Parts: sequence; structure tokens; C-alpha cells
Amino acid sequence: MKPVIWCGDCAKLIDQTLLPTQEEWITCRTPDEMAEAIFTMKVRGAPAIGISAAYGIALGAINSKATSLSELQSELAKAHERLRSTRPTAVNLFWALQEMRKIWEANNADIAELKQRLTERACAIAEEDITMCKTMGAHGAELVPEHARILTHCNAGALATGDYGTALGVIRAAWEQGKLDMVWVDETRPFLQGARLTAWELMQDGIPCKLICDNMAGFVMKQGLIDMAVVGADRITANGHVANKIGTYSVATLCKAHGIPFYVAAPYSTIDPTLHDGKDIVIEERHPDELTTLAGKRIAPAGVPVYNPAFDVTPPELISAIITERGIFRPPYDQTLVKAFS
Amino acid sequence: MKPVIWCGDCAKLIDQTLLPTQEEWITCRTPDEMAEAIFTMKVRGAPAIGISAAYGIALGAINSKATSLSELQSELAKAHERLRSTRPTAVNLFWALQEMRKIWEANNADIAELKQRLTERACAIAEEDITMCKTMGAHGAELVPEHARILTHCNAGALATGDYGTALGVIRAAWEQGKLDMVWVDETRPFLQGARLTAWELMQDGIPCKLICDNMAGFVMKQGLIDMAVVGADRITANGHVANKIGTYSVATLCKAHGIPFYVAAPYSTIDPTLHDGKDIVIEERHPDELTTLAGKRIAPAGVPVYNPAFDVTPPELISAIITERGIFRPPYDQTLVKAFS
Repeated sequence: MKPVIWCGDCAKLIDQTLLPTQEEWITCRTPDEMAEAIFTMKVRGAPAIGISAAYGIALGAINSKATSLSELQSELAKAHERLRSTRPTAVNLFWALQEMRKIWEANNADIAELKQRLTERACAIAEEDITMCKTMGAHGAELVPEHARILTHCNAGALATGDYGTALGVIRAAWEQGKLDMVWVDETRPFLQGARLTAWELMQDGIPCKLICDNMAGFVMKQGLIDMAVVGADRITANGHVANKIGTYSVATLCKAHGIPFYVAAPYSTIDPTLHDGKDIVIEERHPDELTTLAGKRIAPAGVPVYNPAFDVTPPELISAIITERGIFRPPYDQTLVKAFS
Repeated sequence: MKPVIWCGDCAKLIDQTLLPTQEEWITCRTPDEMAEAIFTMKVRGAPAIGISAAYGIALGAINSKATSLSELQSELAKAHERLRSTRPTAVNLFWALQEMRKIWEANNADIAELKQRLTERACAIAEEDITMCKTMGAHGAELVPEHARILTHCNAGALATGDYGTALGVIRAAWEQGKLDMVWVDETRPFLQGARLTAWELMQDGIPCKLICDNMAGFVMKQGLIDMAVVGADRITANGHVANKIGTYSVATLCKAHGIPFYVAAPYSTIDPTLHDGKDIVIEERHPDELTTLAGKRIAPAGVPVYNPAFDVTPPELISAIITERGIFRPPYDQTLVKAFS
């Protein structure tokens, strides 16, 4: 289940705002169209956003009519800025755009060669992501006990990555190993990624799941029905503060209160070594309508003030381990996370 | 803002499933119509359910064509059973029905007199509830610090009571005393009582509020933006276990983790002295469609398994105080709550 498919001169995306009731694919031919798809969350999930942004740059190159290298580079710089401005929190977007920039700034190719190199790098980013997810899944499955009942929040699945998923990659690997009893799926308001996307993915794979409202997770924990929680991440500081979908912090706090292990699964590139405090992570606030309307219907009084952060930050003391394709990292994260590879 | 109005030969209810976009009043003329209104949550909130059930019995009496006292009593017994079966968790329903039963079982009146006594008792239950809410509000306001930013969950407001509210009664009293800066309103999935009802009530009264998804409360607490939380209750055991709207337990756990006082406001009749363990409280499970559809639109895959408890139970160790019309009760609740009046 790849959410973004490269087609040579365009990229096709499954419109994640319409799932699960409609499976519609949209076609992006320009960086602007890709930026709009990211901004409106037709594609979402930190790794999938990175892949899509890389394809956006490749589209800018492939479909350019520039007649000189410098003209093409100037167009790509504009595309880069447009794509950069779509979502502020996930680091994968900036990482993937930077990977692409390295290529078009190298300045040692002709136009045709540069177009090809950019396309190849974008496709490689997508392929590497799938390999990373599978490796991450294998590492993470080691942490899963027999007959596990696992809670997840938001969608860190195939739809959020190149394929297979990060948190859902761990869950898929545990399922393949026969260790998994079922998955508790937080619906994940306001955008309902859990209800719409995670439940859909799990049902497609025949993995048993049960949908709950976000506010039910604590009561389910209290009844002893959750053995562990695993979520994805949009950005991780060098000392283990994790930005992820709003509500993750509440899940982690509730896990701590109930003695339930709380794990984060993400590509190693999600770690931003320049940041050391959760407060340094820019938290995107989205439009109040995401809370006050649903399917075009108003569900709150007109004009009600709203706070709608798209992400929150979970501090390292609430995180039992961080699962990456490079292995499992345990606290103290300021000792383990970056130093191993610096 | 009375949610239920007695009109002599019928009761009018504001349809709370249509708020805030439509203000429609429905008319109940029989116990069956009232039972249906309670079951479908056109009227909801523990005290308002109690009042409505009492009116339901009064309607059964007023509109009866019975020619003998025993015939009328037999009809009322059926009405009693029908109303009893609507919602299992809130004790106010059973308390109010029992109050009415005492009258029609007393057997020392003729038909006309019994009809009048039942009507008077039902109206008195409604009036007493308003007085209780105001007294409760005055007690609770003592716990509110200056410039308070208060979190509430669900709707324990005028709409959930005779008028004024329990948790919102405390908030209204604090507002009248100039102590309140603003109210954080949990939207309260799946039925959205916070988004639809609490936000609407607060806006009608000009009380500043901000709407959030339930999963945001923890992150707002972490930012130091919540000074206390107050909620209502559907049933309280003799030792202080509190059944209330699903999600209350998560709010209380998050408050504890952040050192934020967590208060419950409810009429003293909400205390069920026959119960000593939260596990003894029957938790109503409602239809999966409440989670998987919204405004007739599907928001989760068809056939997804769902867990939809309407209530949860918060243990006494998470509750800073219980506010009633008889005063403020502090832990240990097994010493303070019932013994003072036994």
C-alpha cells in the first residue's frame, strides 16, 4: 500500500482526506500541486511528506522548460521554498528537501543529467524509506510481548511512509511473528487519522483492531487491556523530546501512570541533532474549522474560540525506548541517541 | 436556560441532539415519549434525566384514563419500568423514580389527588435541583483561585440539570464573583457534549471559553494553562469512586500528573451509599455508530469493531474534593462522604 507512486512525469497520491469511504488517486505534475496536496493533508505522515516533497522537486525538474542550468536551479529554489512552507513540524520534509538541494546545487551536471539525478534520488528516498520501515519493524517486534494488545495513536502506517509504516511497521512485524492479539486504535481527533486510516489499513491486512475515542484510552488502560503503546514521530530532539500528532503526550502520560511501556518508532533521520529542548520545535496550529466542522457540518457554535495544535511534544522521561532502523535506543537519550553516530 | 419545561399536560424539552445549530423543542405527552427522549439523549445529564423521568411519571398520571386507583397504580408501575430501563449509569434517574413511587404507592389518596401530588412532586424535584445547583455553585466557587483557567469535560451545565448546572454552576458562580479568566472546553467525543452544549451555554452567558479536542487537554496542562478541572457526576460510591462521562478518568489522571486540582460537582443524591467499589457501577455501552458516523456521514471503515463505553469511573485518589449542595467533601471519602449524614 504505497500512498505516493512515481509515474515518470507525474506522481499519484491516494487522497487521504477521502479515506476510508472513497479511494481516489490524484495526480501532481508540478511542485505547486504537490505543495498543495501536502498543505491540505491529502498526503500526510512525516516520512510520506518527505517522499512527496522529494517527488515535488523531481517534478519541478522533469517538467521544466528551462534552457540553462542556472534557470533550472532558480526554478528549483522556488519550488524548494514553496514545499518548505507547507508544514512546519515534521523534520523529514526539510531533510528530504535538503537531500534534493545537495544534488541541484552541486552544479556539475547538464540539464538532462540533473533531471535524471533528481528523479533517481527522489525514488531512492522512497525505496530507502520502505527498507527502513521493515528494519525498524523487525527491531521493534523484539519489544512486543506474546499476546500483545497494542495501543496506537494517529496513523504511522503504510499511508504515512513509503510503505509498511513505522509504528504500524512494528505492529505488522509483531503480527507476522504471531505475537499480536489486537490493536487499540485511537480515533485521533480532529483529523481522525486513526479512525479513517489506521483502522482501514489494519482491516485491509486482517489484523484485529478495535476503535476507541481518544478519551477512552485511559479507561481501557485502567482495565488492564493494553500491554504497550507505539506511535510514530515528526521530529525528535537530540535528547529525546518527541514531537508527534496532538494527543501523543496524553497517551504517554497515561501509559506512565499505568506502568505501560510507551515506544516511539521513526527513521533515524527524524532526529534533529540541532535541537535539545522540546520548546524549540515549532508546533503547527491549524484552522479552527478542523474542530468545529465535520464533513461540512457544523458541530460547535459559530464563532467559538478554538485552540488547534496539530502536534505536541512528549518529554524523554515518558518514553521507554525509541525504535529506529539503526536499532533501539533507551534512556538517557542525551547519551545514546546522537552520540552513537556522531 | 431550563432544558425541560412542565406545561400542565405535557413537558417540553429542547432537543440536545440538534444543538447548537438548531434550537428545537419537542413535546412529550406520555411516559413512553419521555423514555424515548431520554434513551435517544434528546435530554441528557444526570440531574436532567432525573427531572425528566419524574415528569414522565407525572405525564402517565395526568393523561391516564384509569377509573380506579389500582388501575392507575398499575399503569404507573409500567411507566416506572419503562423509564428505568432507558439509561443504566446515572443514579438520579432511579432516585427520582423512587421519589415518585413513594407517592403513588402510598395508597392514601383518590385518583385526582394522586395526579396532583405526583405533578407537584415532579415540579418540586425540578425546583429543588435548581436551588441545589446554586448552592453547589456557591460552595464550589470558594475553591476557585483568582484569574482561574478552568477545564471542564462534557456538559454539566444548565442543559444537564434543572438550570444553572453543577460543574458549570461552579464556573458560573466563579464568573459572577470575578474570579474566572476563561474555561477550556473538552469537545467530549463521541457525542460532543462539550463542543455542542457547553461551548454554546458559555457563549450565551458571555463567559470566555476555548474549545479543544479531548486529546489536547494534557498538552494544555503541560503548558501551565489550566489551574483546575471541574466535572459533574452520574453516580458516586460511598467511598468516592465517581462515574461520569467517558474521558473523565483520563482528565483526572492527567490532572494528577500535573499537580492540578480535580473537582467533582454533583447533588448529594448522586452518592449511592449501597456501592463501595467503582466496579459495582454498571457502565452503559452505546451503539458503535456513535463513533463511526457523524451527521450521517461515515468516518471509519464499515464493520470496524468499536468499544463505546458512555462512562468511566474515576477512583477517589484522583479527586481533590467533591462539591455538593451540602458542602465540600475532602478525602478520605469513606470517612467524610456518607458518615456525615448517616
